[in-house]
Amino acid sequence: MALIVQKYGGTSVGTIEKIKNVAKRAARTKDQGHDVVVVVSAMSGETNRLLGLAHQLAEIPNERELDVVASTGEQVTIGLLAIALTEMGYKARSFCGFQIPVLTDSAFVKARIKKIEGETIQAALKEGMIAVVAGFQGIDDTGAITTLGRGGSDTSAVAVAAALKADVCEIYTDVDGVYTTDPNICADARKLEKISFEEMLELASLGAKVLQIRSVEFGMKYGVRIHVRSSFNDNPGTIVTREEEIMETAVVSGVAYSKSEAKITIVKVPDKPGIAAKIFKPLSDANIVVDVIVQNVSVTGFTDLTFTVGRTDYKKAMLVTGKTAKEVGAEKVVGDDKIAKVSIVGMAMRSHSGVATKVFETLAAEGINILGITTSEIKISCLIEEKYTELAVRVLHRAFDLGNPVEA
Amino acid sequence: MALIVQKYGGTSVGTIEKIKNVAKRAARTKDQGHDVVVVVSAMSGETNRLLGLAHQLAEIPNERELDVVASTGEQVTIGLLAIALTEMGYKARSFCGFQIPVLTDSAFVKARIKKIEGETIQAALKEGMIAVVAGFQGIDDTGAITTLGRGGSDTSAVAVAAALKADVCEIYTDVDGVYTTDPNICADARKLEKISFEEMLELASLGAKVLQIRSVEFGMKYGVRIHVRSSFNDNPGTIVTREEEIMETAVVSGVAYSKSEAKITIVKVPDKPGIAAKIFKPLSDANIVVDVIVQNVSVTGFTDLTFTVGRTDYKKAMLVTGKTAKEVGAEKVVGDDKIAKVSIVGMAMRSHSGVATKVFETLAAEGINILGITTSEIKISCLIEEKYTELAVRVLHRAFDLGNPVEA
Repeated sequence: MALIVQKYGGTSVGTIEKIKNVAKRAARTKDQGHDVVVVVSAMSGETNRLLGLAHQLAEIPNERELDVVASTGEQVTIGLLAIALTEMGYKARSFCGFQIPVLTDSAFVKARIKKIEGETIQAALKEGMIAVVAGFQGIDDTGAITTLGRGGSDTSAVAVAAALKADVCEIYTDVDGVYTTDPNICADARKLEKISFEEMLELASLGAKVLQIRSVEFGMKYGVRIHVRSSFNDNPGTIVTREEEIMETAVVSGVAYSKSEAKITIVKVPDKPGIAAKIFKPLSDANIVVDVIVQNVSVTGFTDLTFTVGRTDYKKAMLVTGKTAKEVGAEKVVGDDKIAKVSIVGMAMRSHSGVATKVFETLAAEGINILGITTSEIKISCLIEEKYTELAVRVLHRAFDLGNPVEA
Repeated sequence: MALIVQKYGGTSVGTIEKIKNVAKRAARTKDQGHDVVVVVSAMSGETNRLLGLAHQLAEIPNERELDVVASTGEQVTIGLLAIALTEMGYKARSFCGFQIPVLTDSAFVKARIKKIEGETIQAALKEGMIAVVAGFQGIDDTGAITTLGRGGSDTSAVAVAAALKADVCEIYTDVDGVYTTDPNICADARKLEKISFEEMLELASLGAKVLQIRSVEFGMKYGVRIHVRSSFNDNPGTIVTREEEIMETAVVSGVAYSKSEAKITIVKVPDKPGIAAKIFKPLSDANIVVDVIVQNVSVTGFTDLTFTVGRTDYKKAMLVTGKTAKEVGAEKVVGDDKIAKVSIVGMAMRSHSGVATKVFETLAAEGINILGITTSEIKISCLIEEKYTELAVRVLHRAFDLGNPVEA
């Protein structure tokens, strides 16, 4: 008998029929003799409807109160799912964030979980109940309702699994698992049986949006096995787990991409200590997230500094940077908002040489110009012109032999 | 400076525009230097939508979980209203039932308030905030969410006012106040300036549905002045208060009626001790509420026993009573589901003779047959054929001089 946490997203509970299906799946797991905790999101569309109401009242609604409104979406789902389970003859009990409690900090609309008490859920499980937990929501130490930000239910589920020392946290979604790349771009993209937390972090943050990054961080920190799988079939999905559990690792696990990038270059910046801080502080003050930063070695006392921002922040970032460039005596600022980032990710990259070379050669062979490069221990990212995105993903996927051999 | 509790029902907060209007009204009261607590219902239609979802999953949904779902309606409203107030530059904070807390028993879907802690709201008021409280909801001593039943927000408001020792509890509704009778029937119905709790209880339970009965009971028990008034204008409404506060009382305050009645008579019941219990126990076991009971004095060892039930329970009640009648050896059971009840209510009735006579004479003069009579200290009710309802209300209203002299 295992303790299994199952998380179902908004599309999996989007209608009364789908809620019934979720109830059936949870009940089947219970019938197999397991303890079952189900974590659910708001019915699809509901969170947007609620936020829409708030935004009719204020352009920037009070965030404490926005969380009071937004958190009702999940509360409706847990009540409905518990009703469905009870109607099927199972014992079930719903839990709001405040009832568990899920303690968070007080950063409304983007709170972080500080601690989850497992006792109330455990008591319900001991009574033979299926516990139904509201994702996305928590409570701060003043008793105010908080929410974890978009996709927060993944984090709720993994955090609950960690608190209960669950055997596995199953994340049900509308895809079968984690693929070597976007199947819409490469028809032969292969589903990964297992992937390490570290690789998943890189893939998630790079745009393979299967799991919220925070949930992977939580899983890694507390060693929660995460099973990403489809709510529409019974196929095994992808297990996200510790590297040690993965017997044989490919050098490269996957190819990720992100299209919504923009690149800004400050030309001929005087290369003095503290110059980077001077440039990036105004950007962070303006709430602009800077992603890739590339700075060449200076040989002349001047350097070119390139960085990327989200495309929606591009105009604001150009304005801010233009001002800073003047102040620090740089020559000029040039930008391009038609940029994509293509990345390859793999744990075994650390011990394999020649991976980077292969990436560059592969792109060069197709005439794709590399506009910037950044690397981590398990990742190589290249900035390219946006129009080459699909081509770059396909040739890299093929070059590293990631495709499904049967279908390839 | 006073402490004012304001309660707005579902129609008063039914749209974003209306929520803005409620915010303006609360803000204006704050501007006048008062401490303000606003209690709100769910946006009109929302509770029905939520219950509808639950009823798609189960004919009789689990009641604990039904309350989890239903209570979200009020939670959305408090968040939105607090956002509106903040946007207008006022300090505001919302409170769910669990945050105050509003402690209730565990009778889900029809819980009763046991205790309200005033400290959290008082602390917010001390900070200069407008407190926005979710009506209808509470929490039991296991931490489960409860609801107070339909119309429960009135009770929430009066109970909060009692806990805070508020100077007045203003109940905003879509009518101007409490009238001497239904203005749809008597064009000259007059708005009452003041009415006692006792009279209001009789009027409310008799079908003049302005305030939930429980809220009036609460007001009476804790001496909360209730001001029933319109949310669409600034006219003074009707103050419901202690009898002592009302200087001059009319003999009769109002004429109420209820059309959804049915009458059942058991003919020739053997008049033995315990017979009434034998007849009414099966009805209460079947969850049928019996209203008026009329039993004549027995002179022959037999008596006729008449009682009324809600029209929707009529068929079930006839079946149950038919069976009982056989068991106790009564002759037969006859029924009529086209019955109305017309009542006159007034505190001063206690010390005035001739009121009943005037009622009977007035009805007789119009040829309206009285099918049953029941009285309390401050009320006389007559059962009549339904088709005479409006006529009876009009002639009684005139006979007791209740009309507005200007418009009459």
